[in-house]
Amino acid sequence: GKDAVPPRKIPHQASGTALVHTPVAVADIPRRLFGSFVEHMGRGVYGGIYEPDHPTADEYGFRHDVMELVNELGVTCVRYPGGNFVSNYNWEDGTGPKELRPVRRDLAWHSTETNEVGIDDFYHWSRQTGTEIMLAVNLGTRGLHACLEELEYVNAPAGTALADRRVRNGIPEAMDVSMWCLGNEMDGPWQVGHMSAEAYATAVDQVAHAMKLAESGLQLVACGSSSAHMPSFGHWERTVLDKAYDNLDFISCHAYYYDRGAASFQDFLLSSEDMAHFIDTVAGICATTKAEKHSDHEVALSFDEWGVWYSDVWNQQEEEWKAQAKAGLHHEEWPKAPRLLEDLYTVADAVVEGSLMISLLKHCDHVRSASRAQLVNVIAPIMTEAMGPAWKQSVFHPFAAAAHHARGNAYAPSIDGPMLSTPQYDAVPAIDAVITWDDERHEGLALVVNRDEHGTHDVRIDCSSLPRIDASTMRIDATQMLHEDDPYRRNTAEDSNAVVPHACDVRMNEDASFTLTMPEISWAAIRFHSA
Amino acid sequence: GKDAVPPRKIPHQASGTALVHTPVAVADIPRRLFGSFVEHMGRGVYGGIYEPDHPTADEYGFRHDVMELVNELGVTCVRYPGGNFVSNYNWEDGTGPKELRPVRRDLAWHSTETNEVGIDDFYHWSRQTGTEIMLAVNLGTRGLHACLEELEYVNAPAGTALADRRVRNGIPEAMDVSMWCLGNEMDGPWQVGHMSAEAYATAVDQVAHAMKLAESGLQLVACGSSSAHMPSFGHWERTVLDKAYDNLDFISCHAYYYDRGAASFQDFLLSSEDMAHFIDTVAGICATTKAEKHSDHEVALSFDEWGVWYSDVWNQQEEEWKAQAKAGLHHEEWPKAPRLLEDLYTVADAVVEGSLMISLLKHCDHVRSASRAQLVNVIAPIMTEAMGPAWKQSVFHPFAAAAHHARGNAYAPSIDGPMLSTPQYDAVPAIDAVITWDDERHEGLALVVNRDEHGTHDVRIDCSSLPRIDASTMRIDATQMLHEDDPYRRNTAEDSNAVVPHACDVRMNEDASFTLTMPEISWAAIRFHSA
Amino acid sequence: GKDAVPPRKIPHQASGTALVHTPVAVADIPRRLFGSFVEHMGRGVYGGIYEPDHPTADEYGFRHDVMELVNELGVTCVRYPGGNFVSNYNWEDGTGPKELRPVRRDLAWHSTETNEVGIDDFYHWSRQTGTEIMLAVNLGTRGLHACLEELEYVNAPAGTALADRRVRNGIPEAMDVSMWCLGNEMDGPWQVGHMSAEAYATAVDQVAHAMKLAESGLQLVACGSSSAHMPSFGHWERTVLDKAYDNLDFISCHAYYYDRGAASFQDFLLSSEDMAHFIDTVAGICATTKAEKHSDHEVALSFDEWGVWYSDVWNQQEEEWKAQAKAGLHHEEWPKAPRLLEDLYTVADAVVEGSLMISLLKHCDHVRSASRAQLVNVIAPIMTEAMGPAWKQSVFHPFAAAAHHARGNAYAPSIDGPMLSTPQYDAVPAIDAVITWDDERHEGLALVVNRDEHGTHDVRIDCSSLPRIDASTMRIDATQMLHEDDPYRRNTAEDSNAVVPHACDVRMNEDASFTLTMPEISWAAIRFHSA
Repeated sequence: GKDAVPPRKIPHQASGTALVHTPVAVADIPRRLFGSFVEHMGRGVYGGIYEPDHPTADEYGFRHDVMELVNELGVTCVRYPGGNFVSNYNWEDGTGPKELRPVRRDLAWHSTETNEVGIDDFYHWSRQTGTEIMLAVNLGTRGLHACLEELEYVNAPAGTALADRRVRNGIPEAMDVSMWCLGNEMDGPWQVGHMSAEAYATAVDQVAHAMKLAESGLQLVACGSSSAHMPSFGHWERTVLDKAYDNLDFISCHAYYYDRGAASFQDFLLSSEDMAHFIDTVAGICATTKAEKHSDHEVALSFDEWGVWYSDVWNQQEEEWKAQAKAGLHHEEWPKAPRLLEDLYTVADAVVEGSLMISLLKHCDHVRSASRAQLVNVIAPIMTEAMGPAWKQSVFHPFAAAAHHARGNAYAPSIDGPMLSTPQYDAVPAIDAVITWDDERHEGLALVVNRDEHGTHDVRIDCSSLPRIDASTMRIDATQMLHEDDPYRRNTAEDSNAVVPHACDVRMNEDASFTLTMPEISWAAIRFHSA
Repeated sequence: GKDAVPPRKIPHQASGTALVHTPVAVADIPRRLFGSFVEHMGRGVYGGIYEPDHPTADEYGFRHDVMELVNELGVTCVRYPGGNFVSNYNWEDGTGPKELRPVRRDLAWHSTETNEVGIDDFYHWSRQTGTEIMLAVNLGTRGLHACLEELEYVNAPAGTALADRRVRNGIPEAMDVSMWCLGNEMDGPWQVGHMSAEAYATAVDQVAHAMKLAESGLQLVACGSSSAHMPSFGHWERTVLDKAYDNLDFISCHAYYYDRGAASFQDFLLSSEDMAHFIDTVAGICATTKAEKHSDHEVALSFDEWGVWYSDVWNQQEEEWKAQAKAGLHHEEWPKAPRLLEDLYTVADAVVEGSLMISLLKHCDHVRSASRAQLVNVIAPIMTEAMGPAWKQSVFHPFAAAAHHARGNAYAPSIDGPMLSTPQYDAVPAIDAVITWDDERHEGLALVVNRDEHGTHDVRIDCSSLPRIDASTMRIDATQMLHEDDPYRRNTAEDSNAVVPHACDVRMNEDASFTLTMPEISWAAIRFHSA
Repeated sequence: GKDAVPPRKIPHQASGTALVHTPVAVADIPRRLFGSFVEHMGRGVYGGIYEPDHPTADEYGFRHDVMELVNELGVTCVRYPGGNFVSNYNWEDGTGPKELRPVRRDLAWHSTETNEVGIDDFYHWSRQTGTEIMLAVNLGTRGLHACLEELEYVNAPAGTALADRRVRNGIPEAMDVSMWCLGNEMDGPWQVGHMSAEAYATAVDQVAHAMKLAESGLQLVACGSSSAHMPSFGHWERTVLDKAYDNLDFISCHAYYYDRGAASFQDFLLSSEDMAHFIDTVAGICATTKAEKHSDHEVALSFDEWGVWYSDVWNQQEEEWKAQAKAGLHHEEWPKAPRLLEDLYTVADAVVEGSLMISLLKHCDHVRSASRAQLVNVIAPIMTEAMGPAWKQSVFHPFAAAAHHARGNAYAPSIDGPMLSTPQYDAVPAIDAVITWDDERHEGLALVVNRDEHGTHDVRIDCSSLPRIDASTMRIDATQMLHEDDPYRRNTAEDSNAVVPHACDVRMNEDASFTLTMPEISWAAIRFHSA
């Protein structure tokens, strides 16, 4: 999306009402769709979720104020401990008495890792926050043997050597982690121990097979491509699935977007189109492989890194290090918990993330797990100050609305209305939306986004096809809208309420539809019910 | 042999005498042809050879009554400790003080492994029983480095770090294990750490080269295909031999047969035809590779898993586990020394095993090592009751006859007589036989089998071509026949003499031949001598 | 060079003066060109550099008399600890308290390794001798994880687990080793853990990438072919460079020459032609890869094993071991520090090594590092007697002359004069020469060799093109010549001055040139300066 083709002069259909038609059921909404990601990097763990000197810290050193925000965010599942970090990580380093834990260099993020927090500790945090752990193993510098030992330590009931070590470390019960990521972005040349598609397919086939022998009912996530822009994208997915299909449950997708990384600001606002195309492609590869193997087994998508990330900053840092290396051997700083990737998000970023969440929900038949990257401080909805408060970025709000209220089934509407054309996209709707509907509670949620950089649009949302909905008793319960006249407005530690959702005006119609006006670059959530 | 083609209507030549013609010398009979197999699985070790509370247990916890049956069986060489078990086994776990040995999960057989028995202990057992150890290394979860350490621990004289550890563990002398299996069935998708032919060839080339640097005169066994029915059979053998020929001494063959696994009962009775074809194929690949490499080095066959195994029972168990896994994470039982693969063998099974042994002897120019799988309790000739007796299955007898009395050279006769045709086989002789002849002692053994499901046949066995045999002084010394009117008759713990060999009527002729009558589904051993 | 083609009858141009024309600048002379090699083998370390009972031993057990000769030799950089040895070496074995270090078997050289010396100790030796360490990692039995741990132990400042272990072992400062060899001769079937080009390329790509993440400014040396005569030569270099180009700084070349290994004695004397061709080939592959990748990064050549080695002796020893192995398992001797490869060098060998050094200097635009193999006792310029003296072999002298006086830039002349033809070579000059010139100090060195087995030649060396040289003030400062009437004359422990350089007669001309007479099989060094 970075080529310099100028936008085509297709005029915006800036007038008229966008019609969000009667939606078609997609699938039940998996709770894991509202996952997040805690990596050992920057201040994500140390000074993020963990700060033992903080006034709100619990007995394990975890900040309660952060936990409260995690609950408010509605996170269901947390990927841990990386990310790139995991590819040179010894899981044992984060277990047992803290005074015996080794200090290591984290090659991925060029930091010093004290190992004060590890799986022993994070397990306590996950129980406190009521979140599921999605655990990643190191396939960079280690392999099958270490994976099996980690699995036994984490999940085996007392009675074996490694389970008994866990018991001695204060955790008598099995941690019962179901979801395991088999390495991280192993196709990326930046990854410690990166591999060819063929080598990774072989490794993951061995690891997945053996882990499933060791523990019944695991759900295993193979690395897909690090992004849809990798040269081996497609080939990688096909190779991995062809080799290891029957022992895999998920294949991962990762995608990050940001303003400067797009062909134009309007293209950035349309990032969810790219995500949708990415999902369709990988889901197609899964379906093809299933058919070729005449299998009745399903491999779903785990979109386990997504969000807005101003990645050029880090890339530039890496280029500088490379340039310095030419000067010969020298000792660089390996800081502890430096400020890394502490992007401050604009309201436009929040609208884009709201739009990406709509895309995930519309594809939740294929995407059965997702993790917004990341949770605290590092490209994060939640920020902290040392010994100070925790606060919410703009992107906190669209995530929280979906995580708390998108229940039951997702419904994907067809949409008529104003269209946008950009350097990257031909004629895509300015408006996007998804409806979720819990037909037991008769409660619904409409998530709507106006991706148009310039135009305000009226939107009419037709809910009449939702099962057992009763137009006569249908009522709007609550509304939220994110929009600022300045799309670059953002929250800061000093003013964390600069960007917050506001209620908006929604007109209920008589035919189980409702209408609202969406200004340019805006996101809205409308909760409704019927008797 | 499982396709549904109906038997062709070629009538049995049920009448007439089978003529077992003057045999042709094959090769000297290697003592290792009478090997067996002790795997850590089920009650093979724990409750099998090892039961420290048993009244007959020795200082190491090994049952003397079992050892006596092992001697009676005539086993020469025992493969240890697996089998599938070895592919996730740390050899160190079975060394040193028992109270420090770790409890592990055995992924292959879904059992808890206490490691009370390991190489330290098995070495004592092998010395007590006078058997050679054939030791398998783990190429599933470990590799070259662990192999070299194990080799040093086992075989190096005192003076190095690992040899000195063995000395401290109570074994001052080098164990002097010659035969090493480089992994087990690494082509099998069920195997922990299974590999492609190319990957295994690379691994085995590295391991074999380095082990031979470390110890002079080792004999190394590469994995061949897990069975002749594997999709990569042939390609696997060619790839492995092409890569690592000069550092290998053996390539393995594995084959199991059972009634329900055959196209018909008659096909099952003809299993030795399949074995013969398997041997011919692999021997051909060895010869081809030798020729292509213009080598003067020989690679022989180690038929190190063979016998009757009702494998559908275990396969069904595995399918059930897979089905249960769909229900999500749950903790299964990991029993200690469960009753696994405790097949009770019929007299028909014994006749088939007798027939397979005839096939091995007839191919002992190529097959220089063989291990009947297994020894105690697990698909075994010897069964035990906890705190109770040890007893013999039907298959004990044909093995023992060969192991004790097949000495000198093997002679393969051509055979005329009644022919059988089945779904799988065109026109094969009902009768099969092999002659062994020790031309120093002037003692011979004829092993004969009637593989016909229905017909009784007279058999005339011509020994006149045996070197230095003297027709005038030739005498029958002893006869044994296995046959029951009910071919499904079997021994049990309560009645372990339901199937035993009986003497049979053998008529000596004047021309160094003898004649006997073989009822349907029967096996016979005739010992003879001349002055 | 071993084919039996008879020498062509091109008559030697035995008369006339060889004209060494105005030289063309090649490049600055890297100090690392005068590197050597200390491998744990034979008496290279134990009884070589290290002999704690020796009267001259320092507190670490290193012989001071040897160190003095090392200084006299002018060695700048020392490759350590192997060689083939490293491919089954655990770097940890050579660290920490000596009484805890394990005794191992060295598979490469069939010796017992006591680990009394390791990186901890060698670091002290390198500081005492003022030499740079070039450290090789084990890619035979270990991989990425162990490499990263070794790098951290060696180079990380205190504060991490492994750096702190080094501190506890008595070395508080980072060792700051820049040059790392990524395995040794991994293409060689004799190498423990040898690999295909593709497998090594994958391994080295992972290791180089991760090591450079861990430490900024490292210079990494990938294994090239073990020799230009390997079947995969060329393919190997291309495959490795294509995969890992950006993270590599050097690719290695290894070449050994000896009389019996050449097509004729005259061919042996022309060994530097073979080296020059080897360098051109590998430099061409580097340039091609750089062009294909449109890279601005340079990969240079590290000619890190070179010299004269009578390798047939060791090869015959290995054949004998292989033959013995057919007799079955037996325990061989694993001697400690046996006399291995203690070749005694003739004056002809010294002339050839002088000629090889000229070749290296003439190619120092591509060859930016070189290590003469080896340093002490093992194919070495320096020999020792236990509790006795250290003494110099003939090959000591041409190395020392270059190492001490070849400064500034190297200049490669074109040469007219008598030509030689041999079974291997068409028409190559009998005389070879290189000029080095330090244009700050106005000091120069001419290294000249007469490679003719039979003819004496006058040589005129034109220095007029050297920058800022002043013909009127140009003076000869010192001369050295190696030549003996018996080309097989050699030094021994008893008579270590049998072969030493002598001054020779050099006539200064008026045009910044000088003239000398080179007898058959001779080497000369002429130092000069101008105002």
